[in-house]
Amino acid sequence: MNTKSGLLEPLESLSMTDRVENSLREFFTENAFKPGDPLPNEQEIAQRLNVSRNVVREALSRLRMLGMIETRPRRGMVMAQPDPLASIEKVLNPLILSQSSLNDIFELRLILEMGIADFLFARKTAKALDELELIVEKQKKLPLLSKEDEIEFHGKLYDMTGNETFQRFQSLLFPVFEHVFTSLSKPGGHAVIKDPVSHYDLFKILKEGTSEEFQQAMRIHLSVYYNTIKA
Amino acid sequence: MNTKSGLLEPLESLSMTDRVENSLREFFTENAFKPGDPLPNEQEIAQRLNVSRNVVREALSRLRMLGMIETRPRRGMVMAQPDPLASIEKVLNPLILSQSSLNDIFELRLILEMGIADFLFARKTAKALDELELIVEKQKKLPLLSKEDEIEFHGKLYDMTGNETFQRFQSLLFPVFEHVFTSLSKPGGHAVIKDPVSHYDLFKILKEGTSEEFQQAMRIHLSVYYNTIKA
Repeated sequence: MNTKSGLLEPLESLSMTDRVENSLREFFTENAFKPGDPLPNEQEIAQRLNVSRNVVREALSRLRMLGMIETRPRRGMVMAQPDPLASIEKVLNPLILSQSSLNDIFELRLILEMGIADFLFARKTAKALDELELIVEKQKKLPLLSKEDEIEFHGKLYDMTGNETFQRFQSLLFPVFEHVFTSLSKPGGHAVIKDPVSHYDLFKILKEGTSEEFQQAMRIHLSVYYNTIKA
Repeated sequence: MNTKSGLLEPLESLSMTDRVENSLREFFTENAFKPGDPLPNEQEIAQRLNVSRNVVREALSRLRMLGMIETRPRRGMVMAQPDPLASIEKVLNPLILSQSSLNDIFELRLILEMGIADFLFARKTAKALDELELIVEKQKKLPLLSKEDEIEFHGKLYDMTGNETFQRFQSLLFPVFEHVFTSLSKPGGHAVIKDPVSHYDLFKILKEGTSEEFQQAMRIHLSVYYNTIKA
């Protein structure tokens, strides 16, 4: 195990726990550990790195939180299969992210929303289209769409990509997106304009049109957000 | 401070450290803490939650890793401004992610690549286009593009979105993307076909065309990847 950090962090800012954590992640990569592989225990790691067990325990606790390791009954500590989005979820608190991170995330959602057209057309099924139709038919009768209506329609599109990570990622970004949009809107909220392209229109194109048409319609549908983007 | 988890995790799987970590994050949110705000110290937290200081130290170490808290000289522990991508970076080891996470991430990169057209057109500058031109002119003379050439061209596009989080996110996804693509390709690598839409073509459209044209060209440019996608 070597203690060089592969992450180009300024060395002076690294605590002993940071260094042990980095060493462990490098150790995993260099030895090509796969999920289920047994790992050395806390005491062995402390001895090999010549650090205190408290420091090792803290570093292991971090890796456990990331889902990289887990302890199994009668097997001890093993390599695990991390959920790549679990940790980002923990920090997406709009109150503590920087304004530039918040703006970036706002845009990221627009980028993703525009980028899914080809996946929707590759994976749409009659069943999913029927479910989407129920949503848009219901929404057509409403004078105004609430935040929940928006989430219901766009969430259904995310489902239809068949990409679970994308789906969860968009759901994670949504509160940040709303936070930024609200702060960008004029006091009293943005004017309620009739959508030039409605959810119903998007549904019809997804059912009968092409990926290109869908993208163009989505661009217009999202224009109220695009208009807030600075060059 | 309450110890209910807001995350809908099965309660029995939560360790004491998990519970203290969740309590702390809820405490931050409910009290609307902002970066720089002073936090109670380890001993106070241990007393209020009625748990051992070791457990609190571990939970704080996790939050420190996520960039949510930091210790400042003469000020003690304060709320910090997390980098939303720092922790996802730590787990993007292709050897330990599940095959479905890897496939999802592969697709996520395609979604993002297709979604940036409007941002590129909104933010392109003469200077950035000149820099991109140097890259594509150089690449036009090469018989074959390497992985590095691909990263150079697409990386420059990511720069041009003006979205730093997106830029870093794509860079993080790239190794996973390559890993999946290599594993999907036939043994001996995929056939080297002449790109029907080259980097040079994309550059010309970005300089003189429209966002719609760019998206259509990018779809063809990425078709070797799109063809691997299952319905």
